Amino acid sequence: MKVVVTFQPKEEFVTDLRQDFPEVDFSFFKKINDAEHALHEAEIIVTMGEDLTDRHIELSQRLKWIMVTSAGLEKMPFGAIRKKGILVTNARGIHKIPMAEFTLGLMLQHAKQFQSVLKQEEEGVWSRRLPTSELNDASLLVLGAGAIGSEIARLGKAFHMKTAGVNSTGEEVNHFDQMYTLLNFEEFLPDADYIVAVLPSTENTKYILQTEHFEKMKDSAVFINIGRGDLIEESILLDAARTNKIGHIFLDVFGEEPLPSTHSFWEEKGITVTPHLSSITKMYMPRALNIFKKNLKAYSKKSDELINVIDAERGY
Amino acid sequence: MKVVVTFQPKEEFVTDLRQDFPEVDFSFFKKINDAEHALHEAEIIVTMGEDLTDRHIELSQRLKWIMVTSAGLEKMPFGAIRKKGILVTNARGIHKIPMAEFTLGLMLQHAKQFQSVLKQEEEGVWSRRLPTSELNDASLLVLGAGAIGSEIARLGKAFHMKTAGVNSTGEEVNHFDQMYTLLNFEEFLPDADYIVAVLPSTENTKYILQTEHFEKMKDSAVFINIGRGDLIEESILLDAARTNKIGHIFLDVFGEEPLPSTHSFWEEKGITVTPHLSSITKMYMPRALNIFKKNLKAYSKKSDELINVIDAERGY
Repeated sequence: MKVVVTFQPKEEFVTDLRQDFPEVDFSFFKKINDAEHALHEAEIIVTMGEDLTDRHIELSQRLKWIMVTSAGLEKMPFGAIRKKGILVTNARGIHKIPMAEFTLGLMLQHAKQFQSVLKQEEEGVWSRRLPTSELNDASLLVLGAGAIGSEIARLGKAFHMKTAGVNSTGEEVNHFDQMYTLLNFEEFLPDADYIVAVLPSTENTKYILQTEHFEKMKDSAVFINIGRGDLIEESILLDAARTNKIGHIFLDVFGEEPLPSTHSFWEEKGITVTPHLSSITKMYMPRALNIFKKNLKAYSKKSDELINVIDAERGY
Repeated sequence: MKVVVTFQPKEEFVTDLRQDFPEVDFSFFKKINDAEHALHEAEIIVTMGEDLTDRHIELSQRLKWIMVTSAGLEKMPFGAIRKKGILVTNARGIHKIPMAEFTLGLMLQHAKQFQSVLKQEEEGVWSRRLPTSELNDASLLVLGAGAIGSEIARLGKAFHMKTAGVNSTGEEVNHFDQMYTLLNFEEFLPDADYIVAVLPSTENTKYILQTEHFEKMKDSAVFINIGRGDLIEESILLDAARTNKIGHIFLDVFGEEPLPSTHSFWEEKGITVTPHLSSITKMYMPRALNIFKKNLKAYSKKSDELINVIDAERGY
């Protein structure tokens, strides 16, 4: 059984896979272009998720299964995949821990004014007059109450926050005190101290946040986007920051990544740019490969107990 | 009934007190020296806690109760207080929320490498190659498993950390998986990813952390002191940071405060100085005055249901 991996994991992961599956023939390549000559023999492709095209699917005549070691499936050639009836699985579920920790970290960074504290430290200034606040009793609105959003709310509740969530139906989700839909979440905006967006990019979410939403927020509110950059026009964010409509904006995702070095976001005092970091931790690859290994065991036994199977019709 | 307050709270608190207790005669002073002429009539003194001397107690011939709006009682003239049988209450209990939030904030700041992220942002650099980690599954050792320590552990457990606590007896405390005493906590040091000290300054805790303790810690360990500066000689901390015996040191408390601007801590890369901020929030004064108001109601009714009464013999 031939497995083509279109990225180069650290040596420890390569060794680990070969030890656990001595009967499997693994080939590792730095990128998919290097792997082309091997594709025609591949029964399984393991990919980070943004490199496969229709042509690769066509070349891979024996392909039965694609394992995507991320959650993003936006660039998958599902048309060709459906036609050949190829199984697709991904690594969904491994993002909630790092992304929720990252989000709470940003919220505490703001509440405790760590940016100012670090600036003071650099200048050797001892000043305790900082507008520090608490998460305790503050209100948190999460746009996108899925697995990640619910984990953010769970930690919010541990800090005694009030939590409100937004999903497509408004149905209840664990750890949220109240639920809203994309049509009525505006009602909660005047109460929210922290607004976290963790929405995927779909037809229903693209550019839905408008100037009017920022006008409804508290002057002191903090907006954090760890979902997708196309949730909101960049000009709206810049305007909100420049006119002090809002307390602070943290952006981890952008329309164009890497964010160009000339972009106004970098210089804007009211906006903090982080380089799409929320899900990155040392645990990413071990967790993703654990899912792959579980599935590879099931697949080898011709069991149908694979987890994280993607519906190629719906694309998720 | 005459109440002398030896600090000047914001106008809203003054108004609030006078509205709630119209029969009480409140006098507010910027500092105790300004209040001297009023002390001989004071039945109650409300103080931040570091200004009273034997002489002030002597001058206050009608004094029956001292309310300290902090938790620190180290400088209280308990000898003179005992002699006159004066009641002392303080604001203990109001520190655990802000101090635990501050501590988790520092831990996340380290795990998510926010200092480097902010540095990168300042330079307009998009780089995702940062040694970020997670609190999830990491080990937390708290020296001082009292109300504040237990609250830190509670939040640690919410982040799925392993928690170990240290108190004088080793008896169980909520939210700690394991307990140690000051005599055997060294056993846990090689396992600890985060070591948080929140010990008061007593004969048993002064300068107990020694070079040997830092030698037992992981190279990647993070040491956070939000208790008292005299837990450890400054030279030991500087040495640990300079020789990379430890991952990072966060210090919020110091032998001398404010920390002198020429002090080596400011410049040391492995040490982050914060200006005794852990308990400061906008909620400090409202919470402290709430305790005072509860007690003033009880005191006015000659009830003995006052909370946070200090034993003047023991000093806590």
